[in-house]
Amino acid sequence: KAGWSDVDIRAVDTVRVLAADAVQKVGNGHPGTAMSLAPAAYLLYQQVMRHDPADPHWLGRDRFVLSCGHSSLTQYIQLFLAGYGVELDDLKALRTWGSITPGHPEVNHTPGVEITTGPLGSGLASAVGMAFAQRRQRGLLDPDAKPGESPFDHHIWVIASDGDMEEGVSHEACSLAGHQELANLTVIYDANQISIEDDTDIAFSENVGQRFEAYGWDVVDVDWRQDGNGATYVENVDALWTALEQSKRSKRPTLVVLHTIIAWPAPTKQDTGKSHGSALGDEEVAATKELLGFNPKKTFEVDRAVLAHTRKAKARGKAEHKAWDKTYAAWRRGNPERAELLDRLVAGELPAGLDKALPVFPADSEKGLATRAASGKVLGAIAGVMPELWGGSADLAESNNTTMEGEESFIPTGKQTREWKGGPYGRTLHFGVREHGMGMILNGIALEGLTRPYGGTFLVFSDYMRPAVRLAAIQKLPVTYVWTHDSIGLGEDGPTHQPIEQLAALRAIPGLDVIRPADANETAAAWGAVLRHRDRPAALALTRQAVPVYDRKEYAKATNVTKGGYIMAEASTGTPDVILIATGSEVQLAVEARKTLEKQGVGTRVVSMPCREWFDEQSAAYREKVLPRAVRARVSVEAGVPQGWREVVGDAGEVIGIDHYGASADFTTLFKEFGFTTQAVVAAAKRSIKTAKGN
Amino acid sequence: KAGWSDVDIRAVDTVRVLAADAVQKVGNGHPGTAMSLAPAAYLLYQQVMRHDPADPHWLGRDRFVLSCGHSSLTQYIQLFLAGYGVELDDLKALRTWGSITPGHPEVNHTPGVEITTGPLGSGLASAVGMAFAQRRQRGLLDPDAKPGESPFDHHIWVIASDGDMEEGVSHEACSLAGHQELANLTVIYDANQISIEDDTDIAFSENVGQRFEAYGWDVVDVDWRQDGNGATYVENVDALWTALEQSKRSKRPTLVVLHTIIAWPAPTKQDTGKSHGSALGDEEVAATKELLGFNPKKTFEVDRAVLAHTRKAKARGKAEHKAWDKTYAAWRRGNPERAELLDRLVAGELPAGLDKALPVFPADSEKGLATRAASGKVLGAIAGVMPELWGGSADLAESNNTTMEGEESFIPTGKQTREWKGGPYGRTLHFGVREHGMGMILNGIALEGLTRPYGGTFLVFSDYMRPAVRLAAIQKLPVTYVWTHDSIGLGEDGPTHQPIEQLAALRAIPGLDVIRPADANETAAAWGAVLRHRDRPAALALTRQAVPVYDRKEYAKATNVTKGGYIMAEASTGTPDVILIATGSEVQLAVEARKTLEKQGVGTRVVSMPCREWFDEQSAAYREKVLPRAVRARVSVEAGVPQGWREVVGDAGEVIGIDHYGASADFTTLFKEFGFTTQAVVAAAKRSIKTAKGN
Repeated sequence: KAGWSDVDIRAVDTVRVLAADAVQKVGNGHPGTAMSLAPAAYLLYQQVMRHDPADPHWLGRDRFVLSCGHSSLTQYIQLFLAGYGVELDDLKALRTWGSITPGHPEVNHTPGVEITTGPLGSGLASAVGMAFAQRRQRGLLDPDAKPGESPFDHHIWVIASDGDMEEGVSHEACSLAGHQELANLTVIYDANQISIEDDTDIAFSENVGQRFEAYGWDVVDVDWRQDGNGATYVENVDALWTALEQSKRSKRPTLVVLHTIIAWPAPTKQDTGKSHGSALGDEEVAATKELLGFNPKKTFEVDRAVLAHTRKAKARGKAEHKAWDKTYAAWRRGNPERAELLDRLVAGELPAGLDKALPVFPADSEKGLATRAASGKVLGAIAGVMPELWGGSADLAESNNTTMEGEESFIPTGKQTREWKGGPYGRTLHFGVREHGMGMILNGIALEGLTRPYGGTFLVFSDYMRPAVRLAAIQKLPVTYVWTHDSIGLGEDGPTHQPIEQLAALRAIPGLDVIRPADANETAAAWGAVLRHRDRPAALALTRQAVPVYDRKEYAKATNVTKGGYIMAEASTGTPDVILIATGSEVQLAVEARKTLEKQGVGTRVVSMPCREWFDEQSAAYREKVLPRAVRARVSVEAGVPQGWREVVGDAGEVIGIDHYGASADFTTLFKEFGFTTQAVVAAAKRSIKTAKGN
Repeated sequence: KAGWSDVDIRAVDTVRVLAADAVQKVGNGHPGTAMSLAPAAYLLYQQVMRHDPADPHWLGRDRFVLSCGHSSLTQYIQLFLAGYGVELDDLKALRTWGSITPGHPEVNHTPGVEITTGPLGSGLASAVGMAFAQRRQRGLLDPDAKPGESPFDHHIWVIASDGDMEEGVSHEACSLAGHQELANLTVIYDANQISIEDDTDIAFSENVGQRFEAYGWDVVDVDWRQDGNGATYVENVDALWTALEQSKRSKRPTLVVLHTIIAWPAPTKQDTGKSHGSALGDEEVAATKELLGFNPKKTFEVDRAVLAHTRKAKARGKAEHKAWDKTYAAWRRGNPERAELLDRLVAGELPAGLDKALPVFPADSEKGLATRAASGKVLGAIAGVMPELWGGSADLAESNNTTMEGEESFIPTGKQTREWKGGPYGRTLHFGVREHGMGMILNGIALEGLTRPYGGTFLVFSDYMRPAVRLAAIQKLPVTYVWTHDSIGLGEDGPTHQPIEQLAALRAIPGLDVIRPADANETAAAWGAVLRHRDRPAALALTRQAVPVYDRKEYAKATNVTKGGYIMAEASTGTPDVILIATGSEVQLAVEARKTLEKQGVGTRVVSMPCREWFDEQSAAYREKVLPRAVRARVSVEAGVPQGWREVVGDAGEVIGIDHYGASADFTTLFKEFGFTTQAVVAAAKRSIKTAKGN
């Protein structure tokens, strides 16, 4: 039914030869999978997917995710054949400095690459996020269209490998995909039985199909290996085509278990671990070429007829795009307000009313307010003006305050519960206890491009989702993390739940903003600032416990948060004798210590520094104003490891932190026992003043 | 068949009431699961498990793992009833400062607690490691005994919750448990359908039993809920007992899916999310007591008869222990050499020949040797003298050099592959692409206490296993990580595979040693030093690329590694004009820069600093000798984020690092393009000298 002609077969064999050549040229890489997946990838790019090589950002396109990113050639060669502007010279430059063909696919680097993959499990899990986003976007823009009739209908296609299936994140995301009945998701699982340690039987014997059935997926087996022996290997592309086409009409996500032989048909290295991650060697490459009817002496050989045939993808894409344009135009005419919203989303602009919508919290030095509670109120307040913002929690909704009041859950209608009402287009996400899956799904949502996702858990469990956070930063995705219970202030749950090293460890991630607001108004300002950025993820570290809401007539404006660090309270002496720098809940210690010190005649400045990254971005003049080089007496206070604060306080400074794990007790006891007291800050200030003078 | 009498039933109801009281007293915690799991936990501690309350460290004991650590009362109350020395006052002190009943169970803190749990998935996954270790230990000590007849046979019992099943790490470890056919592992999965966001239907509808069947587990369904309505709820303990007893004889791991109603039989809060993580309230506690025939006005009520009955566990434990002592004594007589080995392992002593076995590598400034390759040679060299050391890789054996030459794989006999031969008692571990599962399994192996495990992957993927590393550090477990490809030196695989922030992020973890040796001999010394520690995990960060093997006649001895930092090359000027501090592969830049600087008359000291933690542990005098306060001109060089190095170089120092992601190219290009060159170090040295003078 795929109906391949000789030129299709020649094209697919060309893919194999190009893959072998490209790896051979650079001397390292992954030829095997690119060879054996050639027919599957060719089917997708030439027959199954809706895409337009001339417009890789077309709103109506299907998405392709290569979860086995090490097989980047699988995608690069299809982009070459289909006419995305990846050319033979690019394939020749594989894995070299400055090329558009890096070792693993990188989004915004190569035309047609939708996502950066490589860390196993990440692509597959983020594809689930894309499928989430497609549904939500459709709900926002065209909820009443019949299935398949909206310009916002598209499908997510994934190729995944054994390694993807072994990684825990694939379990988290795929269990959720089944739960969410994501009909718009099809995964080809390349069951080639080979990973780096050769035969996967050494570590991996689960029945993946059965596991996905347990998740509620449609599972189709397409067996090219048959008894596993190369002699019986038949690349039945019709069966694969049928499975893929069927999956378009399924009401659930589909897993196609495709049994392949890696590096097929390389005569001696097929079906071996060696062909997975190393060049085949000149001899094997030549033998493969002979087998396939290519000239073993030529490299990067592509028949003119092959390229002419495969580049018809451009004309097909153009025609599909044109047909879509009509539907899209009709939608615009029928939905002028939604079209306006779409235009704003495509432009990446914020709604006009955002700043006005951000709440202002009245000063409250008595009861105070936890910054997590303030964050919840911010979300509720901006929900109306910013429909593209949505998110939820990894089973800690109430603790993380991540639910926008009154918004429905994103859930199949039949799976509503007594606590949560909703439907397929709902706004509140429920990730279950799956932090890593959440992180990858948030990335996928952001990659789809129209909506802005956030997700919450306890700060300590940011550890579970770290690979996803890193990928958000690498891909410059505007994902927001709502990480609450941000210190030993978490209290009774004890050391396993109390973050100690997480703030430092997160600040170490290049391209991630870590914001720890001191009070409710800093929290509102932080949300505002985070939403203004579109080129990076941001993490909000929020308290469980109540903290004072400062009187901003007495202290500097909370909107200074955008500068990352600011003079919150000035020293009475003009030039301060000492500067106290604090973040989050410890700002209150600095504020209290300042009162004591000032009473004792010590001119004390308090700097609230909610975001080190934003502070570092300020002009040298601004930074000098806040932290004048001449004032060497400095104290930092943060309930986390000291690491990284020497940079701020300098040689004469003192760092108040905690360099060991916490304990199970109420938070007031913990702060006291672990040395976070006003007196400790006062004493450190005096030590630092002495040191600064002494030098 | 469990044969419970009235006093057993009263005892179980006492558990429920104590759980409600204890949470009510402190005002926060998790009463619900402790109430509904009371019968299951009681069965384990009173009838099913082999244990001796008087000797919590008995070698022959079964292990109990409470993977749903938030339900710590489930365990504390059983420890109280069985007579472990946890008393009523301890239950009253739940979740308060200094108590032995913290919010989550903590090993080495409460008698009878085998493992620190709380982060979901971790207990279950580490239990798989315990089951691994039991098998390997038996293989080392008593391989020829028939099943069930060795003193080293014991069983691992786990209670796990919905959250454990949602977490990805449970997939990784349980897939591997099925693959390994771990007959010594039984998991009770408390399928209560409730997590913090109430009905788990909102996020979790997979068929867990089917999933575990796909992994190759025996799955038994024990349904107390029946149609899910409280009216039909029957705690059929006989059915549960039968399932547990059967699992002892199974040849595979067993999952008992136990359908319970959380907080049973609390009249209004049973089966709700509220009862999961909050105190029930005085009224509900009183109502529950009335329902169960307790005095609603009394708290912490325990009938004398109940305690007398349950404390018979002590006599039973004594008898079992005594019977075991006989078998054990017979084994000692029959296996004097193995008994000697066991004594050494129990004492936690190193073998006499270790230092001698550590290889010495000849100087080689031409070809050099990658430190990962050196590590592989070290492992091979010490394999013979240190049979307790074992480990493997997450599908990167050859890249991580983690296989001890000639050692067999740990694998069911029927699952050997053409590349890997072995058997159930083998030594080489194969984790598949499951870094997080690997980390938790390593913890479980270490917790069993007799062997020492190591595991490898690329340094960048330490991110995947971070929660496990943290738990190793919290529990002070001597686990060793072999993390190779430790910088942009990884090369062509590109930014997703190149660690940038990982060294800093790992150093942030309290209680973890991070060691980045400069050459082959530092690598050998590092292994020696790591193995001497028994109270903490350690990470080796090793190069992919070859680095020079220094001539230790010219440079200071590599055994100085134990000090964390040492003067590798002294300045010609006596007191140095500048100190260059470097780690790992960047030491060669410091060494080269020193030559240039010395030629220009600048007295230059090179400090190799493979382990910041070990250096910080040295005396102030030693640290002053290596880094004299008076020498303020300092440069640090490390191919990672600068974070944390200001502490070492001071205000006048220069930090050479990389604060952005890498790229896909060969490593020599990357080092050059990203500013890791001899010239850059020389220039930084001169800048720092100038700054130091200027101040």
